[in-house]
Amino acid sequence: MATQGQVITCKAAVAWEPNKPLVIEEVQVAPPKAGEVRVKILFSALCHTDAYTWSGKDPEGLFPCILGHEAAGIVESVGEGVTDVQPGDHVIPCYQAECKECKFCKSGKTNLCGKVRLATGAGVMFSDRKSRFSVNGKPLYHFMGTSTFSQYTVVHNVSVAKIDPKAPLEKVCLLGCGVSTGLGAVWNTAKVEPGSIVAVFGLGTIGLAVAEGAKAAGASRVIGIDIDRKKFDTAKNFGVTEFVNPKDHEKPIQQVIVDMTDGGVDYSFECIGNVSIMRAALECCHKGWGTSVIVGVAASGQEISTRPFQLVTGRVWKGTAFGGFKSRSHVPWLVDKYMKKEIKVDEYITHNLTLVDINKAFHLLHGGDCLRVVLNMNV
Amino acid sequence: MATQGQVITCKAAVAWEPNKPLVIEEVQVAPPKAGEVRVKILFSALCHTDAYTWSGKDPEGLFPCILGHEAAGIVESVGEGVTDVQPGDHVIPCYQAECKECKFCKSGKTNLCGKVRLATGAGVMFSDRKSRFSVNGKPLYHFMGTSTFSQYTVVHNVSVAKIDPKAPLEKVCLLGCGVSTGLGAVWNTAKVEPGSIVAVFGLGTIGLAVAEGAKAAGASRVIGIDIDRKKFDTAKNFGVTEFVNPKDHEKPIQQVIVDMTDGGVDYSFECIGNVSIMRAALECCHKGWGTSVIVGVAASGQEISTRPFQLVTGRVWKGTAFGGFKSRSHVPWLVDKYMKKEIKVDEYITHNLTLVDINKAFHLLHGGDCLRVVLNMNV
Ligand SMILES: NC(=O)c1ccc[n+]([C@@H]2O[C@H](COP(=O)([O-])OP(=O)(O)OC[C@H]3O[C@@H](n4cnc5c(N)ncnc54)[C@H](O)[C@@H]3O)[C@@H](O)[C@H]2O)c1
Ligand SMILES: NC(=O)c1ccc[n+]([C@@H]2O[C@H](COP(=O)([O-])OP(=O)(O)OC[C@H]3O[C@@H](n4cnc5c(N)ncnc54)[C@H](O)[C@@H]3O)[C@@H](O)[C@H]2O)c1
Ligand SMILES: [Zn+2]
Ligand SMILES: [Zn+2]
Ligand SMILES: [Zn+2]
Ligand SMILES: [Zn+2]
Repeated sequence: MATQGQVITCKAAVAWEPNKPLVIEEVQVAPPKAGEVRVKILFSALCHTDAYTWSGKDPEGLFPCILGHEAAGIVESVGEGVTDVQPGDHVIPCYQAECKECKFCKSGKTNLCGKVRLATGAGVMFSDRKSRFSVNGKPLYHFMGTSTFSQYTVVHNVSVAKIDPKAPLEKVCLLGCGVSTGLGAVWNTAKVEPGSIVAVFGLGTIGLAVAEGAKAAGASRVIGIDIDRKKFDTAKNFGVTEFVNPKDHEKPIQQVIVDMTDGGVDYSFECIGNVSIMRAALECCHKGWGTSVIVGVAASGQEISTRPFQLVTGRVWKGTAFGGFKSRSHVPWLVDKYMKKEIKVDEYITHNLTLVDINKAFHLLHGGDCLRVVLNMNV
Repeated sequence: MATQGQVITCKAAVAWEPNKPLVIEEVQVAPPKAGEVRVKILFSALCHTDAYTWSGKDPEGLFPCILGHEAAGIVESVGEGVTDVQPGDHVIPCYQAECKECKFCKSGKTNLCGKVRLATGAGVMFSDRKSRFSVNGKPLYHFMGTSTFSQYTVVHNVSVAKIDPKAPLEKVCLLGCGVSTGLGAVWNTAKVEPGSIVAVFGLGTIGLAVAEGAKAAGASRVIGIDIDRKKFDTAKNFGVTEFVNPKDHEKPIQQVIVDMTDGGVDYSFECIGNVSIMRAALECCHKGWGTSVIVGVAASGQEISTRPFQLVTGRVWKGTAFGGFKSRSHVPWLVDKYMKKEIKVDEYITHNLTLVDINKAFHLLHGGDCLRVVLNMNV
């Protein structure tokens, strides 16, 4: 391939400073080193984690950087020693790596992988602790090991899932974060059984995917809780059977749910990122067995709390990252499920824009009518 | 039997008021009504829950009452409809009932039983919401559905476990609470696997039973944490392999444990009742899978807290009541294990006194050299 081994100059949305509009720049993308893969990104969606870091509220956020972590593309070239993918492969970059050889990967107990985490957390590549992105010689930090708001990106080979080339990349890009997280929270982390009563707090993409996963798992009731009444019409299509708006009640929302369910739900999911709702989600669980899963990401420094009696009387408090899915193993499986029409993806996409409209896309993301905005990266 | 159907007058330790010495009184114990069992208590141990209620710090404590919930005795008579036990049976009264027919018992997911809970919480019997204890006509509240600091007590038939008559009651009384709780926290709630690294916070009876349970489950390391250095010598005999005194370290104790264990423990147990140690116990767990079980009972109104990130990155926060053992089903099984020398009991008994010395016994319980004091109820 003509570009292999060469620096590629392409467009990317650069976050020069927190909370300032992203700037579409011509960036230089260095060729992949050993154990790395350069990917042509075709479609990239926006997730609240991008918005959170961009806002400057994330103390670990590094600037200038290229954000983006929910995307799909095609391998352009691979570095030395990379055998799992080759140029032309259709892939989804994965912010959760899966090396299959670290303590975490081998534990059989978690999808978190330790291999490249320190490097990705520091915004650099593992091998030389440097960035592959620059603008006129000035390096830009990587973000979450993915940086998909660029027409080309470089990722670690442990962070790229090879998928069915027939899958529409403009849709399955969503399986790189939100939809997979919601489904996995139900299937892997909570392991909801048929007949269960489920409460979902927050009916954005993550909450709707939780509802869909719960329905697929055979839940008898899926109670959706949101302060935005508009969410309910959509939510019905994703398996929510009852809707509760905390604003309609004087009682604490946990009490409302306990009263509706003869003692509480079997499983609850917090899909907002609000620490007081995390507490409510725990406390609306049934004594003896109710399990609450935190999916939402709270602002830095905030803490959850409850009385220990809630746990001593049998409730369980958990959380999930990427829904417990092992990225390279399970993302291709999720794509296949989508191709067999066993899971929704298209229905989460409310807006389609192009890379140059990325600031507008972030603005839309914060509005109530938006689930996912997908950016076409190459027009 | 001569006493059957009659009021029995016997000795009991009465807590007339919070935080005032218990008074040995002649109390009247009414005959058991339908679904009830009157038990001659032979031996009763002291547990911190008795001391906590006695202190007046438990807002749900009711006075005057007869405390005590870790005991063994012999059935004196049974009320109408009681078929599971009969006069002469050796029994352990159980503060956790097991009716085998309520939503909880049938769930297969918990040992908490809902049948008589409201009545026992209110210090009365289920059938008529009255007490069976009185002194000169003045009723005394029951406590935890057991009230074993009396030579005779009346309990619900769902709260009495029939055990091997060959078992020494002066020992197996401990299986009514503390020892069972610690073992069950490991075997039922945490389900510790062979090779696990375990941390036990607090090396009293509960913590030592956790250590013993962990050793039996095949834990590779059992790290005991206590601020009382004297506890270590005893602890070694119960399976603790390493000892950490938080006072020897400047770093937060969770960091000390994480450093000792290449990232944290697989399972931790809080056996103190201190909410900041509950947090430390969670935070010393390994990312991705570490599970922390709260066994200690915190003072009323106190709250646990942590950053939700602790859970989102895979730690699990749980609690346990009576170690998850179903009382009537499992207490006899525990007694059998003791008879086969598969679990320790004798080793937890540091003091033997008689009922009349109960105030001295409570004093001993708060000293560092005491694990369990067993009262002989009939001298
Ligand atoms: N754990 C993970 O791996 C992971 C992955 C992706 C996203 N997330 C997090 O999941 C969360 C949800 O993401 P999303 O994309 O669905 O967000 P979203 O903003 O689209 O949805 C949040 C929903 O919560 C509702 N809401 C807000 N405050 C509420 C309240 N007090 N009570 C009830 N409802 C309330 C909003 O109306 C909205 O419908 C975010 O915190 C995100 O960072 C976590
Ligand atoms: N969940 C249940 O079903 C259940 C049942 C029985 C008892 N309990 C509770 O379990 C707890 C322990 O009971 P026990 O009988 O073993 O008590 P105990 O007082 O004998 O033991 C507590 C130990 O913790 C140590 N300790 C105190 N503060 C400490 C600190 N800051 N750091 C480290 N160590 C500290 C003490 O030195 C002592 O050795 C109590 O809270 C009791 O109420 C719970
Ligand atoms: Zn995301
Ligand atoms: Zn790994
Ligand atoms: Zn006890
Ligand atoms: Zn029951």
